[in-house]
Amino acid sequence: MAAQTILFDFTLDKDKTADAQQRQEVAKILRNELEHVFPQLELAYSMESEENGYFSVLHENKDTIITCRIFQHGLLTLNVEYYLPDGKEPIISFDIGKSLENSLALKLKALRGQKLPALKRGDVARYFPSSDERIIEYDIDTLVYETRSPFQKIQIMHSKTLGNMLILDELQNIAESDLIYTETLMGRGIENYEGKEICILGGGDGALLYELLKENPKHVVMLEIDELVMQACNKHLNSICGDVLEKRKTDQYEIIVGDCVEYMKKFIAEGRKFDYVFGDLTDIPISGAPIGECWDFIRTIFEHSFKVLKPDGKYLTHGNGTSCIESLELFEEQLGLLKPKVKFTTTKAFVPSFMEEWLFYQVTFA
Amino acid sequence: MAAQTILFDFTLDKDKTADAQQRQEVAKILRNELEHVFPQLELAYSMESEENGYFSVLHENKDTIITCRIFQHGLLTLNVEYYLPDGKEPIISFDIGKSLENSLALKLKALRGQKLPALKRGDVARYFPSSDERIIEYDIDTLVYETRSPFQKIQIMHSKTLGNMLILDELQNIAESDLIYTETLMGRGIENYEGKEICILGGGDGALLYELLKENPKHVVMLEIDELVMQACNKHLNSICGDVLEKRKTDQYEIIVGDCVEYMKKFIAEGRKFDYVFGDLTDIPISGAPIGECWDFIRTIFEHSFKVLKPDGKYLTHGNGTSCIESLELFEEQLGLLKPKVKFTTTKAFVPSFMEEWLFYQVTFA
Repeated sequence: MAAQTILFDFTLDKDKTADAQQRQEVAKILRNELEHVFPQLELAYSMESEENGYFSVLHENKDTIITCRIFQHGLLTLNVEYYLPDGKEPIISFDIGKSLENSLALKLKALRGQKLPALKRGDVARYFPSSDERIIEYDIDTLVYETRSPFQKIQIMHSKTLGNMLILDELQNIAESDLIYTETLMGRGIENYEGKEICILGGGDGALLYELLKENPKHVVMLEIDELVMQACNKHLNSICGDVLEKRKTDQYEIIVGDCVEYMKKFIAEGRKFDYVFGDLTDIPISGAPIGECWDFIRTIFEHSFKVLKPDGKYLTHGNGTSCIESLELFEEQLGLLKPKVKFTTTKAFVPSFMEEWLFYQVTFA
Repeated sequence: MAAQTILFDFTLDKDKTADAQQRQEVAKILRNELEHVFPQLELAYSMESEENGYFSVLHENKDTIITCRIFQHGLLTLNVEYYLPDGKEPIISFDIGKSLENSLALKLKALRGQKLPALKRGDVARYFPSSDERIIEYDIDTLVYETRSPFQKIQIMHSKTLGNMLILDELQNIAESDLIYTETLMGRGIENYEGKEICILGGGDGALLYELLKENPKHVVMLEIDELVMQACNKHLNSICGDVLEKRKTDQYEIIVGDCVEYMKKFIAEGRKFDYVFGDLTDIPISGAPIGECWDFIRTIFEHSFKVLKPDGKYLTHGNGTSCIESLELFEEQLGLLKPKVKFTTTKAFVPSFMEEWLFYQVTFA
């Protein structure tokens, strides 16, 4: 079950859309052209205003509904929407859409035109934002698992090309395709983990723990708040986490289910220190804090992390998409506020399931 | 200059949308909830039909226009559109949109809900399809160059994270981020090009020629039809093509501007043979042939290529996105029709500017 929405937009000469009369003219041309594709097209409604231009509703048998706006600034938007039963061919195929775009652009004498790929609405969730809020459509074919934990909405979705993906509160976290994410986060081939003591904050998908254990560390402790995330990943993401989430304690590692800040406080009180601390938490605190307080949370994590770090230790974490310059600057500003002073280097990787390049930080005492 | 379009959809219990009366009820709930965000909301128009359900137009000051459809199959779509002047904050920010989605889902008792990231319409082209027609939004900030050659529309666009991208007839071709594309196509580290004779069909971006020349081949001949593509890439993509497009002939290579099929016929007549032939043409023939004849074109290329290949030579080419199973099957079917018989292996790579995994073919005589 799904509706299809196909969006077109055209940039027109401003002089052609400045007054109501001119917009009527453009609307007429548009309608004539649409009738080639929709022979039973009817005008159902139209509205005009000095400040907001022209708007109309056209339809064919009340089935395909087309809305059109002509803004006085020389922009025309056209939204075509219809119900597409399972297994039926779309009314506006890729090629028909393209040729409609071309003929409209020609007839409207548009300066530029664009047809967006058809949007599918009503079935599986497939649209997710990049870190800078761009739309990305994933080739998701199944919702494998869904539950709501006390902390967040947990979903495992299957992408045809990326494998199973972990989605937390409707944001992409990691997929089976993302070994590069873990390897860049840990600096594989650069850092030496042999015989080292390591603390992971978060990391509930198990991928980081799994990869670290291959490098013979002395001991890894992982502090993850959400038991249900680990259960979901243990079952559906074992190509990236192996069986590390099966057991909670071995000679080599311990997984503690709880709030990482509380446990770090305990470690500080005990004087327990690590060679490496990993910040592998979700971007936004899952405590339900308002977004504005996100940076307070991040700074709290930093402050505690550096208190459980040996003097020559390293704090390794992901930053954000490299296109999020502002957010990365704010992140670095927070690092700059820390006492004692720290310094950092960065690395980058294109993460398949994020569909973008991501920045990673390696932070040490200055 | 841009309009913002924000799309929501909700899956409802079918029993709540089956008749006109019920749909009216749902519309009322929706309107009440929208009034929290749009206090001056007005109903401008509504339409109802047995077969196609309910449709309405709501607006606030004719500025933000909201259209709503309630399909009898239990699907509600909501399209919000307004004009966003440059530099102004959107009316529906990411967080407002998310919270509107949540409150609507709650009040409508929806089985599922989805808010698509806001679509920007009217400025630079930023939406391109994946090979399986999924929508992908690129972080394009500038149209660097645009021209129309006798063969195609040529654009160079700048993406903040992928660098300059070559766009031919509104489809992504290659970007500065895509060394992996060229390396996978040529099987770097697997194939040995030293002292070999090579023919490239297409390859106008120069990246393949540039990388091949690093491997000390005896000679490379490149057959590219579009002079203007090479000029554009020489100027705007030189991080991936170096200066190979500057000169058209050296001791090591020759670039011939012309139809590759014609030149292959010439080579066949002369008895000229190659160790490697590369199919590095655009997916769809640029000759303007109907899409249906695309496979005829591809087969023609195959047939001629194998006639200029030495008995132990290899034909290397890209296939398609790995999610395009049908298209890949058709491609392999064409290979199966060739005489003498051929056999093939495949390799894969996630190509950053395609935002998907792509399949590459290595074909030899059976």
